[in-house]
Amino acid sequence: MRIITLLTDFGLRDGYAGVLKGVIWQHAPQVQIVDLSHDIAPQNVLEGTLALERCAPYFPPGTIHLAAVDPGVGTDRLPLAADLGGFYFVGPDNGLITTLVRLARRQGIVPRFFHLNQKQFWLPEVSNSFHARDIFAPVAAHLANGVPLEQLGSPLKDAVIFEIPMPSPKDEGWRGEIIHIDHFGNLATNLRSNHLAAFTNVHIHVGEYTIRNLSPAYHSNARGDLIAMIDSAGYLAICVVDGSAADFVQAKVGDPVEVHITTSPSLLPS
Amino acid sequence: MRIITLLTDFGLRDGYAGVLKGVIWQHAPQVQIVDLSHDIAPQNVLEGTLALERCAPYFPPGTIHLAAVDPGVGTDRLPLAADLGGFYFVGPDNGLITTLVRLARRQGIVPRFFHLNQKQFWLPEVSNSFHARDIFAPVAAHLANGVPLEQLGSPLKDAVIFEIPMPSPKDEGWRGEIIHIDHFGNLATNLRSNHLAAFTNVHIHVGEYTIRNLSPAYHSNARGDLIAMIDSAGYLAICVVDGSAADFVQAKVGDPVEVHITTSPSLLPS
Amino acid sequence: MRIITLLTDFGLRDGYAGVLKGVIWQHAPQVQIVDLSHDIAPQNVLEGTLALERCAPYFPPGTIHLAAVDPGVGTDRLPLAADLGGFYFVGPDNGLITTLVRLARRQGIVPRFFHLNQKQFWLPEVSNSFHARDIFAPVAAHLANGVPLEQLGSPLKDAVIFEIPMPSPKDEGWRGEIIHIDHFGNLATNLRSNHLAAFTNVHIHVGEYTIRNLSPAYHSNARGDLIAMIDSAGYLAICVVDGSAADFVQAKVGDPVEVHITTSPSLLPS
Repeated sequence: MRIITLLTDFGLRDGYAGVLKGVIWQHAPQVQIVDLSHDIAPQNVLEGTLALERCAPYFPPGTIHLAAVDPGVGTDRLPLAADLGGFYFVGPDNGLITTLVRLARRQGIVPRFFHLNQKQFWLPEVSNSFHARDIFAPVAAHLANGVPLEQLGSPLKDAVIFEIPMPSPKDEGWRGEIIHIDHFGNLATNLRSNHLAAFTNVHIHVGEYTIRNLSPAYHSNARGDLIAMIDSAGYLAICVVDGSAADFVQAKVGDPVEVHITTSPSLLPS
Repeated sequence: MRIITLLTDFGLRDGYAGVLKGVIWQHAPQVQIVDLSHDIAPQNVLEGTLALERCAPYFPPGTIHLAAVDPGVGTDRLPLAADLGGFYFVGPDNGLITTLVRLARRQGIVPRFFHLNQKQFWLPEVSNSFHARDIFAPVAAHLANGVPLEQLGSPLKDAVIFEIPMPSPKDEGWRGEIIHIDHFGNLATNLRSNHLAAFTNVHIHVGEYTIRNLSPAYHSNARGDLIAMIDSAGYLAICVVDGSAADFVQAKVGDPVEVHITTSPSLLPS
Repeated sequence: MRIITLLTDFGLRDGYAGVLKGVIWQHAPQVQIVDLSHDIAPQNVLEGTLALERCAPYFPPGTIHLAAVDPGVGTDRLPLAADLGGFYFVGPDNGLITTLVRLARRQGIVPRFFHLNQKQFWLPEVSNSFHARDIFAPVAAHLANGVPLEQLGSPLKDAVIFEIPMPSPKDEGWRGEIIHIDHFGNLATNLRSNHLAAFTNVHIHVGEYTIRNLSPAYHSNARGDLIAMIDSAGYLAICVVDGSAADFVQAKVGDPVEVHITTSPSLLPS
């Protein structure tokens, strides 16, 4: 069995996501298809690649990630496919692949990129605004059927890769930022557990709030408390128990979050 | 073929639901997976279990219901699995299973509960905030593969079960309440058809409104009419034809609904 | 493999869509099921049939489209199935099939309609408000299993078909209207490319705005520009680059859009 995942900014109302499955199953009836998300904010390629990073490690080897957050559709941005070691990417060459390349490189894998230019593997008619349907879906299906990337396109030296914001060191700590706000209003940052000495002796500053120490679990605090914890993707996150930290802190993606490692946690007021 | 259903409060934007499918298919590539809902109100365990009750009777024997509305994730609430006769539950031991136990007991089945504590069936790394991915999804997959519950956990005498609000008798009628407001704004109550003598000679009171008698079908009345009917789950529901009863009545879950069985329907003004 | 697609106005919160899959897989465990949309505006049959038109051409032969936007459920509107040449419809006889009949007739196919009245193919208990679950889902499953339409119902001379608004000719142009506003806020019209002489020498009037000429692609203009282009379904659409034309123009479905073919594009102000 092969899995194709779908990640787009198409929404679920108009049938655009369903059409991708029709096209895929026309060419590769045996594949399993998973919706990762169709609610990426319109044209927000950074949000799209960060969502891919959260999901991709949990899929079996051979999985093909078809992603389409594609403001440049119909312009000269290239249609792209990549072999990333254990898994594949099919989508626009606009930076959406960034986190998948990072995941692959961390495992010592050298990604191979391909410019999709073999039109015999596309739908017969290609629109200027829906390459996910007309190019990416049939290409992903042929790839699932075993057609090698070398036949689907031409080798490409490199792909468009984003600079993803990284934390910077500060006196006795780090300055990071909010990179994602999820469905619950949890604020995910780009700070990882290795930016924190331990669960204690640390202060986290976000907006006008200071949080003392990390909580081991979501509900180890009282309802309504503003807490900090390591989230399920390994990042420092700011949460409100049974509530929305985004509403509470009035935060948005890009806002700074500072971590201050203290020798004496009692020096600062709570 | 085995079916695993998913019911969560994760939303569809962040990829959390898609990840569950990746984990399940890694271990059990042959199962079919159905999304029941990922839009249960955050941390609303009662709404979650009521949704399970509407859905479970329509799935074939052997179906595994993986449910995660889980405010206590990472605390001492237990990870739970249950054999409910024809079907299975995997999720937190926080009352989410309540209606499934009720369905099973109505059929004379004695549920068997298990504390999931066999970590060799979990993901190698278990977070403190995403047990659906790290524990419930792999356990559901192994269960679908035929691993018996006795190997996945230890027998548990009982599970956490909610008190679900029940109607109380009143002079010539019943006092119930609104237990669910659906996508259309229909108000489902906890009153069943056996609380009503017949379709006629009955008055239903909700908010400041009185509805005379039940309608046999949704569109047997005029557009905009406030009507009462037996809904597809067998409960008394208040609806507005081509509109939202929730908006019309300004009702919310928990609001009282009274049924008054009349001998002469003409005694009350319409 | 057989595919059953689902298109409804049920939303995704209450489990109504998931239940359809349980019923289908009870009877036909081997079929693939695709959600086209469950977010058609409540009771908006026209929006539903237009969505079917966008999707159906991309599914393989033999696909069964189960559609339920069904304000008349429980009244005397008939349950319907149709053989449309390469594909099938199962749903209410309320006009929802309109665009599929149009697609079939364009290919020279004479549709065959059937009144679904063979209750041995339905669920044992049929509610008055959820025929998608109780009639359409089991019938679609039996159809996928190879039961012929002749056994599922009785031949019907005709089905309810909508008048879909068509453009009317005007001096040197056409007057059409907005027929759909998608997730991105793009305004799809009922004007097709053959209503436009070419990409140039054309003015498009919508609300108080005039757009000169068609854009070949979405991002061939600057961010925030109001543009006109041929969309992925072959219709003239009004878009804002990286924005919402619906918000920009303050438009709604039914608003007029006029096309004026000019001999000299410089005669009108931009």
